[in-house]
Amino acid sequence: MQVAIAQINPIVGDLPFNKAKILAAIEKAKSLKAEIVLFPELALTGYPPEDLLLLPGFIEEVQKTLFEIVDLTHGITAIIGTVRENPSYSEKGLFNTAAIIENGTLVGFQDKSLLPDYDVFSERRYFEPAAQTDLWSIRGKRIAITICEDLWQHADAVGYSRYLRDPVLELKSKAPELLLNLSASPFFQRRHLDRFEVLSKAAKTLGCPVILCNQIGGNDSLIFDGYSLAVDAKGRITTLATGFQEEILLVDTEKKGRSSPPTSNPIEELYSALVLGVRDYFSKLGFKKAALGLSGGIDSAVVACIAKEALGKENVLALALPSQFSSPLSFKDALGLVKNLGISLKSLSIEKPFECFLELLKPEFKDLPFDTTEENLQARIRGMILMAFSNKFGYLVLSTGNKSEMAMGYFTLYGDACGGLSVLADVTKRQVYLLADYINRKKEVIPKSIIKKPPTAELRPSQRDTDSLPEYSIVDTVLEEYVEEHSSPEEIAEKHGLDLSLVKELVRRIHLNEYKRRQSPPGLRVTKKAFTVGRRFPIVQHWNI
Amino acid sequence: MQVAIAQINPIVGDLPFNKAKILAAIEKAKSLKAEIVLFPELALTGYPPEDLLLLPGFIEEVQKTLFEIVDLTHGITAIIGTVRENPSYSEKGLFNTAAIIENGTLVGFQDKSLLPDYDVFSERRYFEPAAQTDLWSIRGKRIAITICEDLWQHADAVGYSRYLRDPVLELKSKAPELLLNLSASPFFQRRHLDRFEVLSKAAKTLGCPVILCNQIGGNDSLIFDGYSLAVDAKGRITTLATGFQEEILLVDTEKKGRSSPPTSNPIEELYSALVLGVRDYFSKLGFKKAALGLSGGIDSAVVACIAKEALGKENVLALALPSQFSSPLSFKDALGLVKNLGISLKSLSIEKPFECFLELLKPEFKDLPFDTTEENLQARIRGMILMAFSNKFGYLVLSTGNKSEMAMGYFTLYGDACGGLSVLADVTKRQVYLLADYINRKKEVIPKSIIKKPPTAELRPSQRDTDSLPEYSIVDTVLEEYVEEHSSPEEIAEKHGLDLSLVKELVRRIHLNEYKRRQSPPGLRVTKKAFTVGRRFPIVQHWNI
Repeated sequence: MQVAIAQINPIVGDLPFNKAKILAAIEKAKSLKAEIVLFPELALTGYPPEDLLLLPGFIEEVQKTLFEIVDLTHGITAIIGTVRENPSYSEKGLFNTAAIIENGTLVGFQDKSLLPDYDVFSERRYFEPAAQTDLWSIRGKRIAITICEDLWQHADAVGYSRYLRDPVLELKSKAPELLLNLSASPFFQRRHLDRFEVLSKAAKTLGCPVILCNQIGGNDSLIFDGYSLAVDAKGRITTLATGFQEEILLVDTEKKGRSSPPTSNPIEELYSALVLGVRDYFSKLGFKKAALGLSGGIDSAVVACIAKEALGKENVLALALPSQFSSPLSFKDALGLVKNLGISLKSLSIEKPFECFLELLKPEFKDLPFDTTEENLQARIRGMILMAFSNKFGYLVLSTGNKSEMAMGYFTLYGDACGGLSVLADVTKRQVYLLADYINRKKEVIPKSIIKKPPTAELRPSQRDTDSLPEYSIVDTVLEEYVEEHSSPEEIAEKHGLDLSLVKELVRRIHLNEYKRRQSPPGLRVTKKAFTVGRRFPIVQHWNI
Repeated sequence: MQVAIAQINPIVGDLPFNKAKILAAIEKAKSLKAEIVLFPELALTGYPPEDLLLLPGFIEEVQKTLFEIVDLTHGITAIIGTVRENPSYSEKGLFNTAAIIENGTLVGFQDKSLLPDYDVFSERRYFEPAAQTDLWSIRGKRIAITICEDLWQHADAVGYSRYLRDPVLELKSKAPELLLNLSASPFFQRRHLDRFEVLSKAAKTLGCPVILCNQIGGNDSLIFDGYSLAVDAKGRITTLATGFQEEILLVDTEKKGRSSPPTSNPIEELYSALVLGVRDYFSKLGFKKAALGLSGGIDSAVVACIAKEALGKENVLALALPSQFSSPLSFKDALGLVKNLGISLKSLSIEKPFECFLELLKPEFKDLPFDTTEENLQARIRGMILMAFSNKFGYLVLSTGNKSEMAMGYFTLYGDACGGLSVLADVTKRQVYLLADYINRKKEVIPKSIIKKPPTAELRPSQRDTDSLPEYSIVDTVLEEYVEEHSSPEEIAEKHGLDLSLVKELVRRIHLNEYKRRQSPPGLRVTKKAFTVGRRFPIVQHWNI
């Protein structure tokens, strides 16, 4: 049997656009002689639609649009992720579902059974779980249809949930000949290897091939990497779609897979994810041009490279905004980078406005010593200039802080945290260096001196990040263990041979700076636990502080 | 039977503090000769603990602390809201529960059955529903224990959920002699009247008295108003605790209620809620002093009054930050208010830094016309000055924008949206006027001229809010209908006799400005649907825009 995977990039809430994309994919699949075309989870609404699902008018329009698609679908079976109203009286009024369409007819709906409600997922807020996973007779074959999470319990690969049901096991006695899965499975590094394991497990249990269609595209903080795939009845991979781009790919269900599992280049994936995240954030919002502050440091250099790749060199404006504390070397480095990238650079000194604020505040501040107040003033003047360019010329400002800084609160609210999108918000300093190396893999794009110099905010004479923070290697270790793994300070100290009081102090800083992160721009999520989405801690709370 | 309601104000995550508070309430209840003392939902952890619940170390400490309380509880039955680990294999690993403690012994746990997962509630993220609601034999009486939402389905008073179970009906055949309810039920205007209806309904069905203990206090955006209450077996009110303050109150279960329902003064409640929200945000974070920009307009005037009430006049600093566009009248009005309140005022002209920025940007902006860029520059300079005072002297800055402005995006990100707390973020302009009248009910605190002048941002010559917005009465109508009720533009236009294209344009503006609200300070929630918490719309989406 020939099944087309329609790995598409829908836009949340854009029903005409998504309908057109779905219809075009159906035509393409027919031209490839596919018998079935499989779409991602919630392909019609885009994923995640969030509280759009609570608007009755939106649900009505989704249903209307689905029926328009039904009328236009002939000569192929289309399986499309959408929502439907729950006709029974039960806790939630909607199902997350797959519409099965054949010859201008809606054959039925297969609803989703396992509804993730952890991390970035809140599916219990909207959806009722399916009563069961049925077997469908499609073109003479017994086919089971599942949606994303439905397969993950069976592989024991679920986060913060342990479902009582296991749709894969429930299907075993029904002996399906083919298992399909509609997914909207967000990216983090090596995630497609997890997906392969999940499919492989299901295939081995059921003794049939499994095909998964994943969404691609960036939606706010979430990035979907695609990498749709198929395994044979023995759980060996037969097909792997490209990552980070749309693709209509034909799967032959009779094909035998290869014994080696898929491979992964984590830093290449991370880079591609960030590029896609930036590109889609701009294009789906209708923005073309980005502005960013270029300090001569590694974070803004990496963001400039990603922005150029995502938007084109003609659409990126770098602003060098030096003060009396900026080293001439920083400007030289910025210049070198800009030249290598072919993007524009403007330079405006912030010294005069800084003097002006100091003058204004002098009667109040009198002879109080220079402290973070004056540091923040500089960062905020830079933010104001970036925002003035944004307001006057329509640039969307990219914020350049990294996850390690976000964790420690080592940034200025309304200063370097200004912007429409925080590109590295979920990338630790450690990973920023790896990204720089990756960007430089063929030739020197980011000048070596940028990579080699010790990190500094240049907000006072001879400042170093290590004046206020331990080495980033320590920050990143504590950050990964505490934020991503929920390990206790005691466990972290013991596992990594760190001083317990240091670990506790870093954990304390992570909690204390919740208020700053709450007002930061949305960040692109690229790990299994980001600060800006999927992690919910109160600002006012007294645990671990 | 004598039951003490312990209407306490816990701090999220502060187990030693909450333990001490619980033990003190137990002692007080004993001194009142109570046989039972009833605490709020999750009294031990504080509500809402959010992802603290995912930290194994936190859960362990909660359990340890509970057993310390058990050891110290004698001579009374204490029923305390807490969390416990779910010993069975099921979807979530925790229960939201009530611990029943007698004579140094933990008698058992009554878990919560109905787990709200809508609006500000995400209980499915953490908790498994109870299997059943048991009957407990306490001091010779058959007593049923429920937690918050457990009673609401029976009164058909649940939002976005329609539970299959109804614990009140399930209890009917068991014929309890008394029904207790532990609540953490957040404030909005007249909410305690809803709670009375819910209790009354349960009492009538079961034919027994019902007692509800509600939390009080502010936790981040959520404000708990208290107003714990009791009804007799006929559903008539016997006891109503004070709103907005802690209280240990004795209920005699034999007492007959009065026939009239409780009353409500919605604006007084709103005012008290905002005062409590500000007071607790500061005290629980360890801040004493607030700074705010005083424009001479009504919003900042109302915030100044609330801050003075919450923190004391000696702890509020008003900053007048005039520009060339500020009318001398505005300053006179600000001065009058400050005098009436007895708070400090400082005045710093922003003209010089504004000139300085214009000068700096002139080579780039050339002769492009004055637009929102220059308006935003002024607002951002003001934000910078406020934040400089915050950084140098430890003030927490109060943001003064209202819900109508938040809806329309009629504010400057990183400008007037600077601050640690947005006091009026969930108060429409209409309600701001009612608050001003309430504040002036005894004598003129807010000068009449502040209340009477047409709203203006004073960011360009002779500016009025109505240059960019329809009358606030129209904005507020659309806002309330679309945001709080999820009515469609068509329904709103018809119901209120408004032009459909105008309604659609306002709805479009609400969605388009999601990105601004996302970076705004946390706001105090005082309606049933606030922007800053409990409402989740994507930034990147194409519905209704």
